[in-house]
Order: sequence, then C-alpha cells, then structure tokens
Amino acid sequence: MTIKPAGPPQDSHVTAPTQFVTANGVRYAYRRFGAGTGTPAVFLQHFRGGMDHWDPAVTDGLAANRPVVLFNNAGVASSSGQTPDTVEAQADDAAAFIRALGLTHVDVLGFSIGGYVAQALTLRHRDLVRRLVLAGTKPRAGDDTDRHPDVNTVATRHEVLTLEDLRFLFFAPSPASQAAGERFWERRHQRVADVDPPTSKQTMQAQAAAIVDWKRPHGEPFADLKTITQPTLVVNGHRDIMVPTINSYYLAQHIPGAQLIVYPDSGHGSLFQYPDLFVGDVGRFLDAAVAFP
Amino acid sequence: MTIKPAGPPQDSHVTAPTQFVTANGVRYAYRRFGAGTGTPAVFLQHFRGGMDHWDPAVTDGLAANRPVVLFNNAGVASSSGQTPDTVEAQADDAAAFIRALGLTHVDVLGFSIGGYVAQALTLRHRDLVRRLVLAGTKPRAGDDTDRHPDVNTVATRHEVLTLEDLRFLFFAPSPASQAAGERFWERRHQRVADVDPPTSKQTMQAQAAAIVDWKRPHGEPFADLKTITQPTLVVNGHRDIMVPTINSYYLAQHIPGAQLIVYPDSGHGSLFQYPDLFVGDVGRFLDAAVAFP
Repeated sequence: MTIKPAGPPQDSHVTAPTQFVTANGVRYAYRRFGAGTGTPAVFLQHFRGGMDHWDPAVTDGLAANRPVVLFNNAGVASSSGQTPDTVEAQADDAAAFIRALGLTHVDVLGFSIGGYVAQALTLRHRDLVRRLVLAGTKPRAGDDTDRHPDVNTVATRHEVLTLEDLRFLFFAPSPASQAAGERFWERRHQRVADVDPPTSKQTMQAQAAAIVDWKRPHGEPFADLKTITQPTLVVNGHRDIMVPTINSYYLAQHIPGAQLIVYPDSGHGSLFQYPDLFVGDVGRFLDAAVAFP
Repeated sequence: MTIKPAGPPQDSHVTAPTQFVTANGVRYAYRRFGAGTGTPAVFLQHFRGGMDHWDPAVTDGLAANRPVVLFNNAGVASSSGQTPDTVEAQADDAAAFIRALGLTHVDVLGFSIGGYVAQALTLRHRDLVRRLVLAGTKPRAGDDTDRHPDVNTVATRHEVLTLEDLRFLFFAPSPASQAAGERFWERRHQRVADVDPPTSKQTMQAQAAAIVDWKRPHGEPFADLKTITQPTLVVNGHRDIMVPTINSYYLAQHIPGAQLIVYPDSGHGSLFQYPDLFVGDVGRFLDAAVAFP
C-alpha cells in the first residue's frame, strides 16, 4: 500500500498543514508528511495528547522512509465529536479515520494509551495493520504494581502538561534523562503555526475511564495477544513509572512475533529520550522485507 | 586500545590459525582475526563449548569492524590446565589470558555460562572491560523456575552436542526456529582444519559445579550488578529453556547502563538464530562513540 505525498517534499512535522477528513460524522484532524511511497505509519497518541505532542525527531526521522500520518482521534483537540470511554471504541474510531483516508494497510505506532488503542485496532481490524510498534504501553489487565503513586495527580493537574510534569512522567530522575527531557520539550515546540487547541476535559475524563476499563480482564488475561499475527516491536524505558516496564516484557512474551527493546536509564518517554536509537530500531523493523531476518 | 591484525586480512573464523599464549602456567589456545584496529572483542563460550562452537556469521560479522578474539579458558579443549569450579576463578583465568595477549581494554561478549564469567570478569577486573554484551545468561542467584526439566540430561548425554541436542537446547520448537538451528549447525562446521578436540569430562564437571555455585546469592541478590559502570547490551531469545529469559530482564533492570533486546520466536541461542540482527545490534552498540546516543 502506498499513498501520494500530502504536499511538497519539504512537508515535515513543523510544516505539514492540518487537514480534515470526515467519517461517521466525526471531522478528524490529521497531518501527513514524509516519503511519497511505502506503507504509511499511523501514530496513536498518549493520554490527553494531540498531534503537536509527538517528537519531530521521531516523526521526521521515520518520515524519511515512509509517509507518516498524525491525527487526533474522535473528540481530541482539533477533531470534532466525543471521545468514547473504552479503548475498543477508540480503536474503531481510529479504523474509521484510517479507512476514510483511503488507506487499506498501514503500520501502527501506539504510545501509552495509544498503545492500548493500537492493540485493540490490530485485534478488531486485523486486515488494516501490517506491522505494529508498541511503546510505553501494556496489555489489558496488565500489572500496575510499580506505578508511581503521584502519576495521576501530575498527569491531570494542569490544563496542558508543563515541562516539569513531563520530566517527571516521561523521563528518569538521572541528570542525563532529565536533560533529554528538556531537549524533547524544545523540539516539541518547534511548530508554532497551525497548532492544536488543548484537549478538552471531556477527552481527559473519557480517556481516564478507558484506562480504568483497560485494567479489567476480558477472559483469560493476555490470551488475545496470542492471536496477533503481525510482526511487533515492543519498546519501553528502563523504569516506566506510568505504565510499568514489566508490561512490555509481558506484551513481547505473549504476542508471537514480537521483539522487545528496553532502553537504559529512561522512563515512559524513552522514544523521546533516544530518538536516534528509536528511529533506527523502528525504521529497520518497518523497512525489512522480512521483519526478523 | 588497538592491536595489530593477527595475520593477513583474509583471516576469518574458518582460516585464523590456533595460537597459544601462556599465563600462570596455563597454555591458552586462541584465534584472532578481523579488523586491525578497534577495541578487541573477546568471546566467552557456553557450557562445554570451545572455539569451534561459535557461529562464523556472528564472529566474522563482528570482526568486520574490530579484532575478534576467541579462546579456550583454562582446561577447556585445546588449552592446558584444569577448569576451576567457580565462575569467579574462571573469570580470573580469562583476565590472565587477556592480559597475556598484551590487551588492556577489551569488549567482552559472554554467552550462557560465558555470560556469568563476563559479569564476574567485569566486577573483578573493572579496568579491563570497555563494553559488555551478555547473551542468554543470568545474574548470580537468578530465577530458574522456567527451566525445562530435560535440559541437564540433553546437555550432558553426548560427548559432543548433536544437532538434535542443539535444536532442543538453543532453539524454539517452531519450524522457523528449528530450520535456523540447522543453518547454524552447517555454519558451525565450516571450519574443518585446525579444530579443537572435545572438551573433557573434567571441564564438564567443573563447569557444572560452577553453574550450581552461581545459583547461590553472595549477599543481596543482584546488588553487585548495580556497580557495573560499563555500557551493557543484554540479549536473549523469547523463551530460553536453559537460562530462563526473565533473567535477561533482571540483568537489564539492575545494571545501570544496560539495554535489553529479546528476539521473537527463539531460545537460548537467539544470537545464532538471528546472526544478522545480532551482529547489527551488537555492532552498533560497540561502534557508537556514545553507547546510547
């Protein structure tokens, strides 16, 4: 599956115009940039996050060799509609968006709750997904034992996450990781025109409800993961205080064709701490004719 | 630290002559090949294994960009002396060998019990090791819960491991993994001249005793791992029936600068199942100016 480039070759994380497509009555905001050929990579974002909250070093890095599609799911930021309160309904919305773009076969990169949605999307719309990247995420009925007790407070106390919030939530306490957090923060603000409004309280509450629902098993825990046939790359940081790192181990143990990478001295946002490593690892995984040669 | 190439540039896993160097009364057999410059990579072998039991695709792959040193530790195969019955004593022997070659700073790749020795070598001879690669291994007092009950029988029933033994011990039951085991077996027999004799019963018994001793904690389990300052890459297969995969997770959780990679649909010998992936991952790790940029 290939698509035409969305705009001139110089389109990038910073310059790609926000566009809209409608499906099931929802007007989805999206941006498309990068290479004109290759399987498009669709990104699924974290709790309360929008298109502006990705790392340009990651999105542009991966866009060098494939079309990249960022979007806001139903109800999120510049998209219309309501955010539903289950991961499965959010996955169905994401599938509707992808199909509305005319895409029939995509790679999916899900981060945090976006990784929950990516799993549900793969399980509910199996034909749509070629390869799967799961970053800082967990299976349904995962293990929250090592979650930091302050996470919920810090993740919801400001209308928009501050640098201080992000450094605590996404990075490790070491000076090296904290400094990487600051560099990420700078990259994340490179785009200043045509940016999203903050996500709403409705989105926050619905996503929080979906996160709570995701704690409950549906049948035998992790059994559905065994039915995922897509090659999968599972990535996390060494100590993720939001979605404990052991869950990445469980994902890779139960998805039959999954490789696990755990980066050192990092947290939930390891993909933003090591964008060069991450882009290299994900790029090789997505580009290989055979996923694991 | 760089060394001169051991022989003409065409030296390789198959052609490098077996040489000898003496330290502490032991005549160590070794082979050196590959690039003439770069930090030498010293390989530490598995239970009952000698120089011929590495994968040429791995050793030659890594030798493209650094000198590679294979050797037999004290008492093993073509080396003289007795194999000691603790990992720590084997590590001291390895250090004596490395120093006898005139090397002062090396990269160490340890597989299985060779990974135990690599950890002890790093902890007891800290100045000697630049970067560490630990494959299919575990910390002292690791978790053997998921060990397959037939491992000990299969690993000792033949004087030299057969293809059938290796496929069971090192590879996953899937057809893809079993086929990879057969390809490894063919590569492993490419060298037909100047090869090692089998390892002795003395080596087998002493290594078995060292493996049993390695189950016992020395003080608080895993505490010594936290003092390893070398950048470390920990690698294993999805389900290692000899040294359960969860131990690789523990290693990477406790060694401060460690990255973990777990390959899909593979076992103890994942490095021999995916030599291209492994050489790529290890090569990038060893070659990077900063280990985790």
